[in-house]
Amino acid sequence: MFRLNENYLKLPGSYLFSTIGKKVNAYAAAHPEKKIIRLGIGDVTQPLAPAIIEAMHVAVDEMGKAETFHGYAPDLGYEFLRNAIAENDYRSRGCEIAADEIFISDGAKCDSGNIQEIFSTDNKIAVCDPVYPVYVDSNVMAGRTGTYNAETGTWSDVIYMPCVAENGFAPELPKETPDLIYLCFPNNPTGATITRTQLQEWVDYANKVGAVIIYDAAYEAYISEADVPHSIYECEGARTCAIELRSFSKNAGFTGVRLGFTVVPKELKCGDVALHSLWARRHGTKYNGAPYIVQRAGEAVYSEAGKAQLKEQVAYYMRNAHYILNGLRDAGFTVSGGVNAPYIWLKAPKGMTSWEFFDHLLEKVNVVGTPGSGFGPSGETYFRLTAFGSYENTVEAVDRIKGI
Amino acid sequence: MFRLNENYLKLPGSYLFSTIGKKVNAYAAAHPEKKIIRLGIGDVTQPLAPAIIEAMHVAVDEMGKAETFHGYAPDLGYEFLRNAIAENDYRSRGCEIAADEIFISDGAKCDSGNIQEIFSTDNKIAVCDPVYPVYVDSNVMAGRTGTYNAETGTWSDVIYMPCVAENGFAPELPKETPDLIYLCFPNNPTGATITRTQLQEWVDYANKVGAVIIYDAAYEAYISEADVPHSIYECEGARTCAIELRSFSKNAGFTGVRLGFTVVPKELKCGDVALHSLWARRHGTKYNGAPYIVQRAGEAVYSEAGKAQLKEQVAYYMRNAHYILNGLRDAGFTVSGGVNAPYIWLKAPKGMTSWEFFDHLLEKVNVVGTPGSGFGPSGETYFRLTAFGSYENTVEAVDRIKGI
Repeated sequence: MFRLNENYLKLPGSYLFSTIGKKVNAYAAAHPEKKIIRLGIGDVTQPLAPAIIEAMHVAVDEMGKAETFHGYAPDLGYEFLRNAIAENDYRSRGCEIAADEIFISDGAKCDSGNIQEIFSTDNKIAVCDPVYPVYVDSNVMAGRTGTYNAETGTWSDVIYMPCVAENGFAPELPKETPDLIYLCFPNNPTGATITRTQLQEWVDYANKVGAVIIYDAAYEAYISEADVPHSIYECEGARTCAIELRSFSKNAGFTGVRLGFTVVPKELKCGDVALHSLWARRHGTKYNGAPYIVQRAGEAVYSEAGKAQLKEQVAYYMRNAHYILNGLRDAGFTVSGGVNAPYIWLKAPKGMTSWEFFDHLLEKVNVVGTPGSGFGPSGETYFRLTAFGSYENTVEAVDRIKGI
Repeated sequence: MFRLNENYLKLPGSYLFSTIGKKVNAYAAAHPEKKIIRLGIGDVTQPLAPAIIEAMHVAVDEMGKAETFHGYAPDLGYEFLRNAIAENDYRSRGCEIAADEIFISDGAKCDSGNIQEIFSTDNKIAVCDPVYPVYVDSNVMAGRTGTYNAETGTWSDVIYMPCVAENGFAPELPKETPDLIYLCFPNNPTGATITRTQLQEWVDYANKVGAVIIYDAAYEAYISEADVPHSIYECEGARTCAIELRSFSKNAGFTGVRLGFTVVPKELKCGDVALHSLWARRHGTKYNGAPYIVQRAGEAVYSEAGKAQLKEQVAYYMRNAHYILNGLRDAGFTVSGGVNAPYIWLKAPKGMTSWEFFDHLLEKVNVVGTPGSGFGPSGETYFRLTAFGSYENTVEAVDRIKGI
């Protein structure tokens, strides 16, 4: 008789955003007359930039002719895209990353869920608290996290690094030594960042203790301050300890297009074995490449027209971020983030829990945000708002929240 | 100090098709004047059908306007596509499969690699021999296969079911009881099939011993004979023992578009736990949906125009299959497959091994096929040719092979 992966059964409840979706759908069904404004899931709302649309039309036409049809993509992704990434995201910032250290994928969520697979199941992970749920849940599924304590909302074998107001939402080096360290800056969900000097401390620490940093830089396009690093490879020594995950979802609006990449430097080794070769083997065995059309869309992100158009798109969302940040601060709320990130981290008022505030906002003013406690115990009493709505909706949502 | 997933290090050599690619590239680089004909990797060559191209252009335009822009897709995939699949692939054949039992993905390779993850690592798998390498390799990575015997090319904890000339390339019920049974019909690589009656025996067996059948029906569009099942759900009792994997790669030429789906009936349970809920949890946690544009392309596959155009495309490839099958048979080769599948299974002549014949064909007549031994020990001395080339290349390749 077959048996299940029992680790799946340890997972409490369903995936955070599925739960939110169900609550919102139920409310909407019961109150069809209400205009709900969604600043919850980090989904974008602006259409794809014209340069990207144009590139996709060209690629679609290529797929319709035998001479220009493209079947299976190369294992790591098309060179035209990997070269554009290496040049624009790395070499132009002085980071030494080669095109063949870049693995094209269908998004950072998949990569951040799958990357743990190339490590031993007895490795110990460290995560920020609060944290993007995929890092922890994918390790639960692999059996790496021990037992769940429903009271504290924590796993026995996970090292939690609280990111709270007292430390400026920046994690401190853990007391217990981890094997894998998940870091995400600019941070989801808090919108906080750390400086290049602070990140260098993490790189030095990882190299010292023999840990791998899994660095999620999905929000780097939103960085506005000069001392905030866009890539971990801006730090010395990162090539021997860090894997970087990148997404096209937030800088180019690809949440429904699906494109991302992972960088695994060839110097990153365990003994003689390069992690690059393991990730390549996973990619070659369990993945079959991002669509040609989508990879061409990714290339257009790096064209001159694409860059100019996307700079405007990011500015559009950051105007929202500033509106939320300043509007709620002026109204007396405790808020942070929103300067180098499209997320605003809001303290629930009147001693409410995160979910109480979620229900309160949904029911009283029909605004959807994300309960901070869904990201980990230190997120309790906090609330995430995203800047990815339309400007009009953002303004209306802030005005509504002010009135509660 | 972090440690690796040691199971990866057990994998012998690299992924089959990567090895072939490297050999062919090396030969091409050394002999730039030679015209190499590739009938190796099962990649299609015909352009996407006009109905699909049209649907993709419309969808691309939708993504360029705020009112019709699509961000994150629903967890299981868009309803328009799941409904089309449920109706056309299942209800129209009398199979009772609901739209919410269908999980849209970016292809059957990913699904067939990932599906093992929801099962216990001490489950025992049974595979046909020869077999599509992903089934075994993904289980090796999960630590489910024991130790590798380089001499025999087999894993200690895998049940092999030889598919050889003596049994018409159809597996027999294994002596040892498996927990997971991988079946692929029409078969890759042999091109063989089994009848509905034969498949019913497998379903009955799985229900009796408490095994799950992972049924890969990626090639069902090539079925020409009436008693060959298109879906395992044509068999009674399959809803309590079978997961079905489907692909758009071969019926619609989507190898570079990336779309597939997995069916997990809600009755398929281990105790009280439905596998449907585990796969949904995996999908929600580690995957983020197929691109909107690609799901619209998938919908077009089921339009009246799409169906008519794809029927022609399949007929085009099957003309190739018949040309290879008949041409090589007339020339005295031992061949099978090619009637309900786009693959022809060829016995290497003159006592050559599979790789000897591969090198021989590549060097003497510049034709690339796939060595049967790459699919498992019982594939040794066999060779797979695909019908996915152009007709002109197929004719030329067959003429060249005849002359060796």
